[in-house]
Amino acid sequence: MTRLAIGVEYDGSGYSGWQRQRHADSVQVRLDQALSAVACHPVQTVAAGRTDAGVHACEQVVHFDTDASRPDRAWVKGVNAHLPADIGVRWVAHPGNGFDARRSGVSRAYRYLLIDSPERPVLLRDRVGWTFRALDAGPMQQAAEALLGEHDFSSFRASACQAQHPLRRVETLTVRRRQGLVVVDIQANAFLHHMVRNIVGTLMPVGAGERSVDWVGGVLAARDRRRAGITAPAAGLYMVGVRYPARFGLPDPPAGPIFAPAWGDG
Amino acid sequence: MTRLAIGVEYDGSGYSGWQRQRHADSVQVRLDQALSAVACHPVQTVAAGRTDAGVHACEQVVHFDTDASRPDRAWVKGVNAHLPADIGVRWVAHPGNGFDARRSGVSRAYRYLLIDSPERPVLLRDRVGWTFRALDAGPMQQAAEALLGEHDFSSFRASACQAQHPLRRVETLTVRRRQGLVVVDIQANAFLHHMVRNIVGTLMPVGAGERSVDWVGGVLAARDRRRAGITAPAAGLYMVGVRYPARFGLPDPPAGPIFAPAWGDG
Repeated sequence: MTRLAIGVEYDGSGYSGWQRQRHADSVQVRLDQALSAVACHPVQTVAAGRTDAGVHACEQVVHFDTDASRPDRAWVKGVNAHLPADIGVRWVAHPGNGFDARRSGVSRAYRYLLIDSPERPVLLRDRVGWTFRALDAGPMQQAAEALLGEHDFSSFRASACQAQHPLRRVETLTVRRRQGLVVVDIQANAFLHHMVRNIVGTLMPVGAGERSVDWVGGVLAARDRRRAGITAPAAGLYMVGVRYPARFGLPDPPAGPIFAPAWGDG
Repeated sequence: MTRLAIGVEYDGSGYSGWQRQRHADSVQVRLDQALSAVACHPVQTVAAGRTDAGVHACEQVVHFDTDASRPDRAWVKGVNAHLPADIGVRWVAHPGNGFDARRSGVSRAYRYLLIDSPERPVLLRDRVGWTFRALDAGPMQQAAEALLGEHDFSSFRASACQAQHPLRRVETLTVRRRQGLVVVDIQANAFLHHMVRNIVGTLMPVGAGERSVDWVGGVLAARDRRRAGITAPAAGLYMVGVRYPARFGLPDPPAGPIFAPAWGDG
């Protein structure tokens, strides 16, 4: 058996999430079916991260084992021919049998796109989180700095989270306004369940002027989910990419999506 | 009766086009229904331009007559509550009874978004035209300059076009690479049927190195549709906005959408 890795882009809007589930459509089921059709044997994939319902991926990294010998283009164009339009393979790599898409990952990058506009987004629906309140990215960026480094992120952890401990190391966290959107970029060694969406939902009242910059550090210190903000909508969240040790020879992760709104700077 | 104007954003993917048709769903039917519900009488709209099936609008401008007296927010938020998620009103204006969304328009701006990538787009499907050939925007821009000014655009006119004559005045036409996309912006006093998509389809082989920069001017001079390129896919085309004389007091048209791909510059 040979272990292969693929980079997969998907629109999460139509799925109950990455993970195979009994009575709901998932990205994993569709991908396993397409890979199995090309491999001519049942394939089961393991992903770097399980994304929730409605969450997108610019580049989810996935591994699987196969004894089928196929040219690389079969694992990309061939598999794509078996996938629906909202899932696509971008590349295949040969990292060796020691690779594990989940365990070998050194850090994960997520991006959250947020639009603040009086009316609901139309062309960007299912692609951004929306608030009708005007946001100032400056205070959001200042507040975000309290979350950098290794911390107990219990205040930003979903009750259903199955992680063994709440310590995570946030390596970068930036909030910028770009072409009419507020763009939140976050990179960490790993994430708790709903961690990015809970961080964004906690930065939002700071951007709207309802909470002070200092409030976010206090929420972190409290280690109490009830102190934080809402869980921001799934539609705005993108798994951008995963970084692995160089010895596996995977492509560099992408920089992340920008969808600028119709009325933004041209 | 009072004449009102509204700016409307829509995702054309799910519709047979702007125009009301007998056996197909159209943007106009949905909008007329929603306006009628708020007005409490049947409303019939007239649009600045009839977009084809699958073509989007950042800001289509529409007028209608009503004897209902409603606050502005009823014509925006109230109407939006009656519209599906892929259509939305952005503003309402009071241009006076001499205004006609189609006849009063001085110029129209369209944008075409084109992605050149080995694999089909996933998150951007239904939002961009796609070619697997690598495009160089430089020669496309050079070739486009032959189309500036007033010309007989018969070479870029659909056979179904109902316009009285083929003369149109192209005021701006730019081709730029931006965040992984090729962006074609075109503004003209008016357009023939399929004119933008036929222009883009004719610039594509120039960008791919299959045709010379000079070829496009020759296509224009031939006044023969058979000489031009393909009709580029509807999914990449956006009606960006319409310019009217200042006396009508309408909001400035927006600058146009950018949807940068997942693997573009962050």
